[in-house]
Amino acid sequence: MPRYRLVLEYDGSGFVGWQRQDNGPSVQAALERALHALCGADLRVTAAGRTDAGVHATGQVVHLDLPRPYPADTVRDALNHHLKPDPVAVLLAIEVDEGFHARFDATARHYRYEILNRRAPAVLDRHRVWHLAKPLDVDAMAAAAALLVGHHDFSSFRSTQCQAASPLKTLDRLTVARHDDRVVICASARSFLHNQVRIMTGSLAQVGLGRWQPARLAAALAACDRTAAGPTAPPQGLCLVGVDYGAPAEDLSRRRRD
Amino acid sequence: MPRYRLVLEYDGSGFVGWQRQDNGPSVQAALERALHALCGADLRVTAAGRTDAGVHATGQVVHLDLPRPYPADTVRDALNHHLKPDPVAVLLAIEVDEGFHARFDATARHYRYEILNRRAPAVLDRHRVWHLAKPLDVDAMAAAAALLVGHHDFSSFRSTQCQAASPLKTLDRLTVARHDDRVVICASARSFLHNQVRIMTGSLAQVGLGRWQPARLAAALAACDRTAAGPTAPPQGLCLVGVDYGAPAEDLSRRRRD
Repeated sequence: MPRYRLVLEYDGSGFVGWQRQDNGPSVQAALERALHALCGADLRVTAAGRTDAGVHATGQVVHLDLPRPYPADTVRDALNHHLKPDPVAVLLAIEVDEGFHARFDATARHYRYEILNRRAPAVLDRHRVWHLAKPLDVDAMAAAAALLVGHHDFSSFRSTQCQAASPLKTLDRLTVARHDDRVVICASARSFLHNQVRIMTGSLAQVGLGRWQPARLAAALAACDRTAAGPTAPPQGLCLVGVDYGAPAEDLSRRRRD
Repeated sequence: MPRYRLVLEYDGSGFVGWQRQDNGPSVQAALERALHALCGADLRVTAAGRTDAGVHATGQVVHLDLPRPYPADTVRDALNHHLKPDPVAVLLAIEVDEGFHARFDATARHYRYEILNRRAPAVLDRHRVWHLAKPLDVDAMAAAAALLVGHHDFSSFRSTQCQAASPLKTLDRLTVARHDDRVVICASARSFLHNQVRIMTGSLAQVGLGRWQPARLAAALAACDRTAAGPTAPPQGLCLVGVDYGAPAEDLSRRRRD
């Protein structure tokens, strides 16, 4: 059973999220339907991260096993053919060692959150940004973001539905930058709690709007209580832009352990 | 009757184009409906350029006369309120001299055409790019584009439905640049013939795909015959990004002439 690693782009607007669910179309179901069309078999795929309804990806990574070998470019092109008209595309397909695991082997996940910060509502990007009309103080947001970087108990920044065993995570990067009328938040970590990026964003927005001082984010973190952090920012501004895997040497050492 | 100048952004996907027509929703009708909601009067607006069905704008300019004065920011905010849920937004409103004319006073119009150049189909930007899977030779496209800049008879690059009195136009700028998997064409002129940017783009694509040598665009121009140029590129890649008006001193001299 040859294993393949795919990089996916998708528009999360019309989906209930990555994961297959009973209440509507999922990205996973769309991809598995395309796989069925390619191979005639019911195959399952495993993703690096389960994005929520409305959340997009330009760099989601999945792995899957095919019943027989195909050239990797054929897998990419055939899946793209069968995925139409779903707004999901396979950007890249490569054959990988059968020990590769899209979820467990990920060493970093990179998310991007985009806020449109102008008086006029979002139009061309309305499904891809959070519109905030009042001017944001990006310097204050960046100062507040720096307080969250590091190894912490992120209980204040997790959904009450989060199923992770531990709230301890290491946030490697949380930056805030303005590009004209866009405010872009970049977050990187080995893994995140459920809704962590959106709750951090909602909290940073409180700072940017001048309602909170930056130091309040340190207090929110210390409280280990969801009610101490800000609201959950809406999903459409969020995009999973990439997933890293260990350097080749590390990959090999991991495979030896398996 | 105070006159206002508006800068508009719109998503052209669901519209039959800028201009009011019987066969479907137009941007003009959406804006005039919002004006009616604001003033209770049937008012007409005049745009710098009539964009086609599916063509977007981030910098369309219009002028309109209101029956009584309003603060310009109120005009912007109230129109944005009444425009919902149409994907049209007023980015800016300013009160201008009653001699200002959005169409006749424009000294430059700037269009941007975006091609997504990768194997995988367009997903997140599917309503905003032209997808071409085969690699484009951007250097050849740029060399070909340079042959079209200047004052020429652009008969080969006008729609057979074009109603302009003269095919003579001065193309001030036509550039082609790659940004990762995007190929962006920027075109600037005082005015364009109908479909001129899309036909120039379709012709440049022939060059980029290696089907035509760059010099063929000079021959196409010289032929003064629509069949000598390439196909019309699809509308969704095109965006009207800005309209310039004379410098303040020129504006004043024009107003004195009026």
